Amino acid sequence: MIYPKSVAALIEYFQKFPSIGPKSAQRMALYLLRMPVSEVKKFAQVMIDAKENTKTCEICFNISSDSPCDICKSSSRDRSVICVTAETKDLIAIEKTNEYKGLYHVLQGLISPMDGIGADDIRIRELLNRLTNNDVQEIILALPPSVEGEATSLYLTKLIKPFGIKVSRIAFGLPVGADLEYADEITLARAIEGRHEI
Amino acid sequence: MIYPKSVAALIEYFQKFPSIGPKSAQRMALYLLRMPVSEVKKFAQVMIDAKENTKTCEICFNISSDSPCDICKSSSRDRSVICVTAETKDLIAIEKTNEYKGLYHVLQGLISPMDGIGADDIRIRELLNRLTNNDVQEIILALPPSVEGEATSLYLTKLIKPFGIKVSRIAFGLPVGADLEYADEITLARAIEGRHEI
Repeated sequence: MIYPKSVAALIEYFQKFPSIGPKSAQRMALYLLRMPVSEVKKFAQVMIDAKENTKTCEICFNISSDSPCDICKSSSRDRSVICVTAETKDLIAIEKTNEYKGLYHVLQGLISPMDGIGADDIRIRELLNRLTNNDVQEIILALPPSVEGEATSLYLTKLIKPFGIKVSRIAFGLPVGADLEYADEITLARAIEGRHEI
Repeated sequence: MIYPKSVAALIEYFQKFPSIGPKSAQRMALYLLRMPVSEVKKFAQVMIDAKENTKTCEICFNISSDSPCDICKSSSRDRSVICVTAETKDLIAIEKTNEYKGLYHVLQGLISPMDGIGADDIRIRELLNRLTNNDVQEIILALPPSVEGEATSLYLTKLIKPFGIKVSRIAFGLPVGADLEYADEITLARAIEGRHEI
Protein backbone atom coordinates (compact mmCIF):
# COMPACT_ATOMS: atom_id res chain seq x y z
CA MET A 1 0.00 0.00 0.00
CA ILE A 2 1.27 3.45 -0.86
CA TYR A 3 -0.38 6.83 -0.38
CA PRO A 4 -3.47 7.65 -2.47
CA LYS A 5 -2.42 9.35 -5.72
CA SER A 6 -3.62 12.82 -4.66
CA VAL A 7 -1.66 12.61 -1.41
CA ALA A 8 1.47 11.39 -3.19
CA ALA A 9 1.20 14.42 -5.53
CA LEU A 10 0.96 16.72 -2.53
CA ILE A 11 4.01 15.18 -0.85
CA GLU A 12 5.95 15.56 -4.09
CA TYR A 13 5.09 19.26 -4.20
CA PHE A 14 6.21 19.90 -0.64
CA GLN A 15 9.47 18.14 -1.40
CA LYS A 16 10.30 20.75 -4.04
CA PHE A 17 10.79 23.39 -1.36
CA PRO A 18 14.30 24.10 -0.11
CA SER A 19 15.45 22.07 2.92
CA ILE A 20 12.28 19.93 2.85
CA GLY A 21 13.20 16.25 2.58
CA PRO A 22 10.88 13.26 2.02
CA LYS A 23 10.09 12.88 5.74
CA SER A 24 9.25 16.54 6.30
CA ALA A 25 7.19 16.62 3.12
CA GLN A 26 5.22 13.61 4.34
CA ARG A 27 4.67 15.18 7.74
CA MET A 28 3.49 18.45 6.19
CA ALA A 29 1.11 16.68 3.79
CA LEU A 30 -0.43 14.62 6.60
CA TYR A 31 -0.80 17.76 8.70
CA LEU A 32 -2.57 19.47 5.81
CA LEU A 33 -4.94 16.53 5.42
CA ARG A 34 -5.96 16.97 9.03
CA MET A 35 -6.80 20.63 8.56
CA PRO A 36 -10.48 21.48 7.87
CA VAL A 37 -11.32 21.87 4.16
CA SER A 38 -12.11 25.56 4.68
CA GLU A 39 -8.66 26.14 6.13
CA VAL A 40 -6.94 24.31 3.26
CA LYS A 41 -8.82 26.45 0.76
CA LYS A 42 -7.85 29.58 2.67
CA PHE A 43 -4.19 28.55 2.67
CA ALA A 44 -4.38 27.90 -1.09
CA GLN A 45 -5.82 31.38 -1.58
CA VAL A 46 -3.18 33.00 0.65
CA MET A 47 -0.53 31.40 -1.56
CA ILE A 48 -2.08 32.68 -4.76
CA ASP A 49 -2.64 36.15 -3.25
CA ALA A 50 0.95 36.38 -2.07
CA LYS A 51 2.19 35.45 -5.52
CA GLU A 52 -0.18 37.78 -7.38
CA ASN A 53 0.20 40.78 -5.07
CA THR A 54 3.96 40.91 -4.88
CA LYS A 55 6.31 42.41 -7.39
CA THR A 56 10.06 42.60 -7.69
CA CYS A 57 11.23 46.19 -7.23
CA GLU A 58 12.57 47.42 -10.60
CA ILE A 59 15.39 49.31 -8.86
CA CYS A 60 16.71 47.08 -6.05
CA PHE A 61 15.01 43.70 -6.89
CA ASN A 62 13.56 43.39 -3.44
CA ILE A 63 10.16 41.69 -3.03
CA SER A 64 7.50 44.33 -2.56
CA SER A 65 3.82 45.11 -3.06
CA ASP A 66 4.80 48.04 -5.30
CA SER A 67 7.59 48.83 -7.70
CA PRO A 68 9.68 50.80 -6.82
CA CYS A 69 9.54 49.39 -3.31
CA ASP A 70 8.99 51.41 -0.12
CA ILE A 71 12.71 51.56 0.62
CA CYS A 72 13.65 52.87 -2.82
CA LYS A 73 10.80 55.44 -2.67
CA SER A 74 11.50 56.57 0.90
CA SER A 75 12.83 60.11 1.32
CA SER A 76 14.27 59.35 4.77
CA ARG A 77 16.79 56.83 3.43
CA ASP A 78 20.45 57.63 2.93
CA ARG A 79 20.82 57.49 -0.85
CA SER A 80 24.62 57.56 -0.74
CA VAL A 81 25.00 53.92 0.41
CA ILE A 82 23.80 50.74 -1.26
CA CYS A 83 23.95 47.46 0.64
CA VAL A 84 24.24 44.47 -1.72
CA THR A 85 22.66 41.17 -0.59
CA ALA A 86 22.28 37.80 -2.29
CA GLU A 87 18.63 37.25 -1.36
CA THR A 88 15.60 39.11 -0.03
CA LYS A 89 15.84 37.24 3.28
CA ASP A 90 19.27 38.78 3.89
CA LEU A 91 17.83 42.24 3.27
CA ILE A 92 15.09 41.50 5.81
CA ALA A 93 17.68 40.31 8.34
CA ILE A 94 19.58 43.59 8.00
CA GLU A 95 16.39 45.67 8.19
CA LYS A 96 15.54 43.93 11.45
CA THR A 97 18.68 45.30 13.07
CA ASN A 98 17.29 48.85 12.61
CA GLU A 99 20.88 49.98 12.19
CA TYR A 100 21.12 50.51 8.48
CA LYS A 101 19.35 53.43 6.81
CA GLY A 102 20.72 53.26 3.27
CA LEU A 103 19.42 51.61 0.10
CA TYR A 104 19.70 47.98 -1.00
CA HIS A 105 20.38 45.88 -4.04
CA VAL A 106 19.30 42.23 -4.11
CA LEU A 107 21.47 40.23 -6.52
CA GLN A 108 18.99 37.32 -6.60
CA GLY A 109 21.81 34.82 -6.32
CA LEU A 110 25.58 34.50 -6.25
CA ILE A 111 28.12 33.67 -8.94
CA SER A 112 28.52 29.91 -8.83
CA PRO A 113 30.26 28.28 -11.81
CA MET A 114 29.58 24.84 -10.28
CA ASP A 115 25.83 25.46 -10.62
CA GLY A 116 26.24 27.21 -13.97
CA ILE A 117 25.38 30.63 -12.52
CA GLY A 118 27.51 33.32 -14.11
CA ALA A 119 27.74 37.08 -13.63
CA ASP A 120 25.03 37.67 -16.21
CA ASP A 121 22.53 35.46 -14.40
CA ILE A 122 22.33 37.69 -11.34
CA ARG A 123 21.50 41.40 -11.05
CA ILE A 124 25.04 42.75 -11.42
CA ARG A 125 24.42 44.82 -14.56
CA GLU A 126 21.47 46.50 -12.84
CA LEU A 127 23.68 47.35 -9.85
CA LEU A 128 26.30 48.97 -12.10
CA ASN A 129 23.60 51.01 -13.81
CA ARG A 130 22.67 52.45 -10.42
CA LEU A 131 26.24 53.63 -9.87
CA THR A 132 26.15 56.11 -12.74
CA ASN A 133 23.97 58.18 -10.40
CA ASN A 134 26.37 60.56 -8.63
CA ASP A 135 24.68 60.11 -5.24
CA VAL A 136 26.24 56.74 -4.46
CA GLN A 137 29.40 56.98 -2.38
CA GLU A 138 29.68 53.53 -0.79
CA ILE A 139 28.72 49.96 -1.63
CA ILE A 140 28.49 47.57 1.31
CA LEU A 141 28.77 43.93 0.28
CA ALA A 142 26.65 41.87 2.69
CA LEU A 143 27.33 38.56 0.96
CA PRO A 144 27.82 35.29 2.87
CA PRO A 145 31.32 34.02 3.73
CA SER A 146 30.96 31.05 1.34
CA VAL A 147 33.03 30.28 -1.76
CA GLU A 148 30.26 31.79 -3.90
CA GLY A 149 29.99 34.81 -1.62
CA GLU A 150 33.75 35.40 -1.79
CA ALA A 151 33.85 35.03 -5.57
CA THR A 152 30.93 37.41 -6.07
CA SER A 153 32.44 39.95 -3.65
CA LEU A 154 35.76 39.88 -5.48
CA TYR A 155 34.11 40.22 -8.87
CA LEU A 156 31.92 43.13 -7.74
CA THR A 157 34.85 44.94 -6.08
CA LYS A 158 36.80 44.83 -9.36
CA LEU A 159 33.85 46.23 -11.28
CA ILE A 160 32.88 48.96 -8.79
CA LYS A 161 36.31 50.37 -7.91
CA PRO A 162 36.75 52.12 -11.31
CA PHE A 163 33.66 54.21 -10.50
CA GLY A 164 35.65 55.80 -7.67
CA ILE A 165 33.18 54.43 -5.14
CA LYS A 166 34.17 53.01 -1.77
CA VAL A 167 33.51 49.26 -1.49
CA SER A 168 33.26 47.63 1.94
CA ARG A 169 32.32 44.20 3.19
CA ILE A 170 30.47 43.32 6.39
CA ALA A 171 32.72 41.97 9.15
CA PHE A 172 33.10 38.25 9.79
CA GLY A 173 34.15 37.06 13.19
CA LEU A 174 32.96 35.62 16.44
CA PRO A 175 29.18 35.88 16.89
CA VAL A 176 28.24 38.01 19.89
CA GLY A 177 27.71 35.75 22.91
CA ALA A 178 29.68 32.86 21.39
CA ASP A 179 32.48 31.14 23.22
CA LEU A 180 35.94 31.40 21.67
CA GLU A 181 36.62 27.80 22.50
CA TYR A 182 33.73 26.53 20.37
CA ALA A 183 34.32 28.74 17.33
CA ASP A 184 35.57 26.95 14.23
CA GLU A 185 39.06 27.74 12.97
CA ILE A 186 37.96 29.70 9.92
CA THR A 187 35.67 31.97 11.91
CA LEU A 188 38.41 32.54 14.46
CA ALA A 189 40.96 33.26 11.75
CA ARG A 190 38.56 35.78 10.22
CA ALA A 191 38.00 37.35 13.63
CA ILE A 192 41.74 37.84 14.13
CA GLU A 193 42.21 39.09 10.59
CA GLY A 194 39.42 41.63 11.07
CA ARG A 195 40.66 42.89 14.45
CA HIS A 196 40.57 46.64 15.08
CA GLU A 197 42.40 48.91 17.44
CA ILE A 198 40.62 50.04 20.55
CA MET B 1 10.65 47.49 6.39
CA ILE B 2 8.84 44.22 6.89
CA TYR B 3 7.43 41.81 4.33
CA PRO B 4 4.40 42.92 2.32
CA LYS B 5 1.20 41.89 4.13
CA SER B 6 0.36 39.08 1.71
CA VAL B 7 3.83 37.57 2.09
CA ALA B 8 3.69 37.84 5.89
CA ALA B 9 0.36 35.95 5.81
CA LEU B 10 1.96 33.22 3.71
CA ILE B 11 4.94 32.87 6.06
CA GLU B 12 2.56 32.62 9.00
CA TYR B 13 0.71 29.76 7.30
CA PHE B 14 3.86 27.81 6.58
CA GLN B 15 4.88 28.20 10.20
CA LYS B 16 1.79 26.32 11.34
CA PHE B 17 3.18 23.10 9.91
CA PRO B 18 4.99 20.71 12.25
CA SER B 19 8.76 21.20 12.51
CA ILE B 20 8.66 24.36 10.37
CA GLY B 21 10.19 27.26 12.28
CA PRO B 22 10.23 30.96 11.33
CA LYS B 23 13.37 30.63 9.20
CA SER B 24 12.13 27.61 7.22
CA ALA B 25 8.72 29.25 6.74
CA GLN B 26 10.42 32.35 5.35
CA ARG B 27 12.58 30.27 3.03
CA MET B 28 9.56 28.32 1.77
CA ALA B 29 7.50 31.48 1.19
CA LEU B 30 10.31 33.15 -0.76
CA TYR B 31 10.74 29.98 -2.81
CA LEU B 32 7.04 30.00 -3.61
CA LEU B 33 7.19 33.64 -4.69
CA ARG B 34 9.83 32.69 -7.21
CA MET B 35 7.69 29.95 -8.75
CA PRO B 36 5.68 30.91 -11.88
CA VAL B 37 2.06 31.90 -11.13
CA SER B 38 0.78 28.87 -13.03
CA GLU B 39 2.82 26.57 -10.80
CA VAL B 40 1.58 28.25 -7.62
CA LYS B 41 -2.00 27.81 -8.78
CA LYS B 42 -1.33 24.17 -9.59
CA PHE B 43 0.15 23.57 -6.15
CA ALA B 44 -2.88 25.26 -4.55
CA GLN B 45 -5.15 22.94 -6.53
CA VAL B 46 -3.11 19.84 -5.61
CA MET B 47 -3.60 20.76 -1.95
CA ILE B 48 -7.36 21.15 -2.29
CA ASP B 49 -7.62 17.95 -4.35
CA ALA B 50 -5.64 15.96 -1.81
CA LYS B 51 -7.87 17.20 0.97
CA GLU B 52 -11.12 16.64 -0.92
CA ASN B 53 -10.23 13.27 -2.39
CA THR B 54 -9.01 11.57 0.75
CA LYS B 55 -11.11 9.99 3.43
CA THR B 56 -10.34 8.40 6.73
CA CYS B 57 -11.08 4.68 6.59
CA GLU B 58 -14.10 3.98 8.83
CA ILE B 59 -12.54 0.72 10.05
CA CYS B 60 -8.82 1.36 10.60
CA PHE B 61 -8.67 5.21 10.39
CA ASN B 62 -5.96 5.11 7.77
CA ILE B 63 -5.91 7.85 5.13
CA SER B 64 -7.37 6.51 1.92
CA SER B 65 -9.18 7.46 -1.27
CA ASP B 66 -12.02 5.12 -0.28
CA SER B 67 -13.62 3.97 2.93
CA PRO B 68 -13.06 1.15 3.85
CA CYS B 69 -9.49 1.49 2.62
CA ASP B 70 -7.71 -0.90 0.26
CA ILE B 71 -6.05 -2.77 3.14
CA CYS B 72 -9.29 -3.36 5.03
CA LYS B 73 -11.04 -4.46 1.83
CA SER B 74 -8.21 -6.71 0.62
CA SER B 75 -8.91 -10.46 0.63
CA SER B 76 -5.19 -11.33 0.64
CA ARG B 77 -4.59 -9.78 4.07
CA ASP B 78 -4.28 -11.84 7.24
CA ARG B 79 -7.39 -10.81 9.18
CA SER B 80 -6.21 -12.44 12.43
CA VAL B 81 -3.61 -9.76 13.24
CA ILE B 82 -4.10 -6.03 13.78
CA CYS B 83 -1.07 -3.76 13.99
CA VAL B 84 -1.80 -0.63 16.03
CA THR B 85 0.06 2.58 15.06
CA ALA B 86 -0.15 6.15 16.36
CA GLU B 87 -0.17 7.85 12.96
CA THR B 88 -0.65 7.08 9.28
CA LYS B 89 3.03 7.71 8.61
CA ASP B 90 3.94 4.81 10.91
CA LEU B 91 1.57 2.55 8.98
CA ILE B 92 3.27 3.63 5.74
CA ALA B 93 6.69 2.91 7.26
CA ILE B 94 5.61 -0.63 8.16
CA GLU B 95 4.00 -1.19 4.76
CA LYS B 96 7.28 -0.24 3.10
CA THR B 97 9.04 -3.18 4.79
CA ASN B 98 6.78 -5.56 2.82
CA GLU B 99 7.00 -7.90 5.82
CA TYR B 100 3.63 -7.43 7.43
CA LYS B 101 0.49 -8.80 5.81
CA GLY B 102 -2.12 -8.23 8.52
CA LEU B 103 -4.55 -5.39 9.16
CA TYR B 104 -3.94 -2.03 10.83
CA HIS B 105 -5.51 0.36 13.27
CA VAL B 106 -4.39 4.00 13.35
CA LEU B 107 -5.04 5.54 16.78
CA GLN B 108 -4.63 9.09 15.44
CA GLY B 109 -2.56 10.05 18.45
CA LEU B 110 -1.27 8.78 21.79
CA ILE B 111 -2.53 9.22 25.33
CA SER B 112 -0.78 12.31 26.68
CA PRO B 113 -2.19 13.84 29.88
CA MET B 114 0.33 16.67 29.56
CA ASP B 115 -1.30 17.76 26.30
CA GLY B 116 -4.80 17.00 27.57
CA ILE B 117 -5.20 13.97 25.29
CA GLY B 118 -7.05 11.19 27.07
CA ALA B 119 -8.10 7.68 26.04
CA ASP B 120 -11.37 8.98 24.59
CA ASP B 121 -9.62 11.43 22.30
CA ILE B 122 -7.93 8.73 20.24
CA ARG B 123 -9.43 5.75 18.38
CA ILE B 124 -9.29 3.23 21.25
CA ARG B 125 -13.02 2.56 21.48
CA GLU B 126 -13.09 1.81 17.75
CA LEU B 127 -10.21 -0.66 18.18
CA LEU B 128 -12.04 -2.52 20.96
CA ASN B 129 -15.15 -2.72 18.77
CA ARG B 130 -13.10 -4.52 16.16
CA LEU B 131 -12.04 -7.17 18.70
CA THR B 132 -15.57 -8.50 19.16
CA ASN B 133 -15.04 -10.03 15.74
CA ASN B 134 -13.76 -13.57 16.42
CA ASP B 135 -11.13 -13.46 13.68
CA VAL B 136 -8.63 -11.37 15.62
CA GLN B 137 -5.98 -13.42 17.42
CA GLU B 138 -3.14 -10.96 17.91
CA ILE B 139 -2.67 -7.23 18.40
CA ILE B 140 0.78 -5.87 17.61
CA LEU B 141 1.45 -2.53 19.27
CA ALA B 142 3.76 -0.55 16.97
CA LEU B 143 3.80 2.55 19.17
CA PRO B 144 6.94 4.66 19.68
CA PRO B 145 9.22 4.14 22.70
CA SER B 146 8.26 7.53 24.18
CA VAL B 147 6.49 8.24 27.48
CA GLU B 148 3.22 8.61 25.59
CA GLY B 149 3.87 5.46 23.58
CA GLU B 150 4.59 3.49 26.75
CA ALA B 151 1.49 4.79 28.53
CA THR B 152 -0.76 4.04 25.57
CA SER B 153 0.75 0.55 25.17
CA LEU B 154 0.17 -0.23 28.83
CA TYR B 155 -3.39 1.06 28.73
CA LEU B 156 -4.24 -0.89 25.58
CA THR B 157 -2.71 -4.10 26.93
CA LYS B 158 -4.91 -3.90 30.01
CA LEU B 159 -8.02 -3.40 27.89
CA ILE B 160 -7.27 -6.05 25.27
CA LYS B 161 -6.07 -8.93 27.49
CA PRO B 162 -9.61 -9.70 28.85
CA PHE B 163 -10.67 -10.49 25.26
CA GLY B 164 -8.27 -13.46 25.39
CA ILE B 165 -6.25 -11.98 22.55
CA LYS B 166 -2.45 -12.06 22.36
CA VAL B 167 -0.88 -8.62 22.70
CA SER B 168 2.68 -8.02 21.47
CA ARG B 169 4.87 -5.01 21.05
CA ILE B 170 7.49 -4.37 18.36
CA ALA B 171 11.08 -4.87 19.52
CA PHE B 172 13.25 -1.94 20.57
CA GLY B 173 17.00 -2.23 20.42
CA LEU B 174 20.04 -1.40 18.40
CA PRO B 175 19.25 -0.23 14.85
CA VAL B 176 20.71 -2.55 12.22
CA GLY B 177 24.09 -1.18 11.11
CA ALA B 178 24.50 0.97 14.21
CA ASP B 179 27.59 0.85 16.34
CA LEU B 180 27.15 -0.33 19.93
CA GLU B 181 29.53 2.33 21.14
CA TYR B 182 27.37 5.15 19.86
CA ALA B 183 24.00 3.85 21.04
CA ASP B 184 22.40 5.78 23.90
CA GLU B 185 22.01 4.03 27.25
CA ILE B 186 18.25 3.60 27.04
CA THR B 187 18.40 1.97 23.62
CA LEU B 188 21.19 -0.30 24.78
CA ALA B 189 19.29 -1.22 27.95
CA ARG B 190 16.23 -2.05 25.85
CA ALA B 191 18.38 -4.13 23.52
CA ILE B 192 19.73 -6.19 26.42
CA GLU B 193 16.28 -6.52 27.97
CA GLY B 194 14.89 -7.75 24.66
CA ARG B 195 17.65 -10.29 24.00
CA HIS B 196 16.69 -13.70 22.65
CA GLU B 197 18.36 -17.05 22.69
CA ILE B 198 20.10 -18.16 19.51
